[in-house]
Amino acid sequence: MILRLVLLVLFATGVPSLNAFAKALTEEKPVTLAGDLGSAVLYTPRNGQIKTGVIVVHEWWGLNDYARSRAQQLAEEGYAAIAVDMYGHGKIADHPKEATAFMNAALAEPDKMNARFQAAKAELEKLPQLDKVYAIGYCFGGAVVLNQARMGTDLAGVASFHGSLGTENPAEAGKVKAKVLVATGGADPMVPPKQVGDFVTEMGQAGVNLELLSFPGVLHSFTNPEATAKGEETGLPVAYDEAADKASWAALLRFLAE
Amino acid sequence: MILRLVLLVLFATGVPSLNAFAKALTEEKPVTLAGDLGSAVLYTPRNGQIKTGVIVVHEWWGLNDYARSRAQQLAEEGYAAIAVDMYGHGKIADHPKEATAFMNAALAEPDKMNARFQAAKAELEKLPQLDKVYAIGYCFGGAVVLNQARMGTDLAGVASFHGSLGTENPAEAGKVKAKVLVATGGADPMVPPKQVGDFVTEMGQAGVNLELLSFPGVLHSFTNPEATAKGEETGLPVAYDEAADKASWAALLRFLAE
Repeated sequence: MILRLVLLVLFATGVPSLNAFAKALTEEKPVTLAGDLGSAVLYTPRNGQIKTGVIVVHEWWGLNDYARSRAQQLAEEGYAAIAVDMYGHGKIADHPKEATAFMNAALAEPDKMNARFQAAKAELEKLPQLDKVYAIGYCFGGAVVLNQARMGTDLAGVASFHGSLGTENPAEAGKVKAKVLVATGGADPMVPPKQVGDFVTEMGQAGVNLELLSFPGVLHSFTNPEATAKGEETGLPVAYDEAADKASWAALLRFLAE
Repeated sequence: MILRLVLLVLFATGVPSLNAFAKALTEEKPVTLAGDLGSAVLYTPRNGQIKTGVIVVHEWWGLNDYARSRAQQLAEEGYAAIAVDMYGHGKIADHPKEATAFMNAALAEPDKMNARFQAAKAELEKLPQLDKVYAIGYCFGGAVVLNQARMGTDLAGVASFHGSLGTENPAEAGKVKAKVLVATGGADPMVPPKQVGDFVTEMGQAGVNLELLSFPGVLHSFTNPEATAKGEETGLPVAYDEAADKASWAALLRFLAE
């Protein structure tokens, strides 16, 4: 209690290194997924009953610091968050070519991806008070969580940030249990307007509860603070956008709390 | 100040007739639009600087108590809200046939509708501290405000509730100044999924800041508490939906405050 008060005072007075303080209130635990499916990292708040869990699926780069930082942030908000490695065993790409190769290898084994997702979900569900699980994903991870929704996985909701919205297996009416939040960049060449519109039609026809945010002029990967540098380095049309990042994160927090 | 405290205490203790108290904090003023364009009703909070105005456009029934109640609610939230009569001079329909006739007559004179909208906007802009104007509309009114956005009218934002989303004059890239909020019923036969999807494509291609909420299983006119009775009386597929009404109203208040 005293620690809490001290931290509150420090937060309120704007002392630097707030990150370190916030992290001190959470716990990070590496997890080995059963069945040689690879690894994940579980972030939990140290105090309080954890009622809601969130599965976090990384960008095509792999389970890097960015995806972990989002899970960490969710733990700071009181959620249990598991950042799952969809590439299995810590593969992280630095170059787009490598990222494409990793992503294509994962996509070639949809059953294994699904097994990894389910194993991460089961890991969250070990928490005794948990009664709801959400899944969120970025870029490649956005497509992963939307596909889980399409498959009818038992999730309270899924959120996709600058994720691909197209599919060869559209959602069937009445099958989707999760509500859906999509945040997309209006100038993202990987998620063009027609793809967004077709996705909205698909969700409508399937009877899905949908919230869509489209930010004009915003590029792919807009939530990732390192995207701008990555774009300059690689020539990819990716860039961070602070306003869209903040607005979509606020929408996510509301979405999880509803 | 004492009045405010008394009211706060009354609100907090849940004394009945809160509506009457809330109304006492606002002012209602009939307005005659210049150029024999008809009438409107202006609602303003009695206290505080009014920085933001909202034009409210009614359903196909005409400027009835429902549209006025929304403007009233906005005044209670601190906004100046003008409920404008798009049919001109107090025509209110009771039967769908009559509503259709009124609506078609209005749609046949787009220049006059635009003049009415602009006159209501000018009325709001007389308020000395005003720096932003939004427009919201229900059903027919939703289409009216979206068309204003498409035309490039100088508005901070427009919000459509169960409004028709189709158009013969799609928005052009870079022309739309307003951000757009759309709340739609997933089971509204007047706004089917394909129409919603095509609209989202249109907005994306035009570079519009869009927030879309789609509520599964929800019918047309879901924000209007009288819709269910009206549906039973007329056989129209309209019904009130409390959850969708509350969620879309909360989204509107955030949209106006951003």
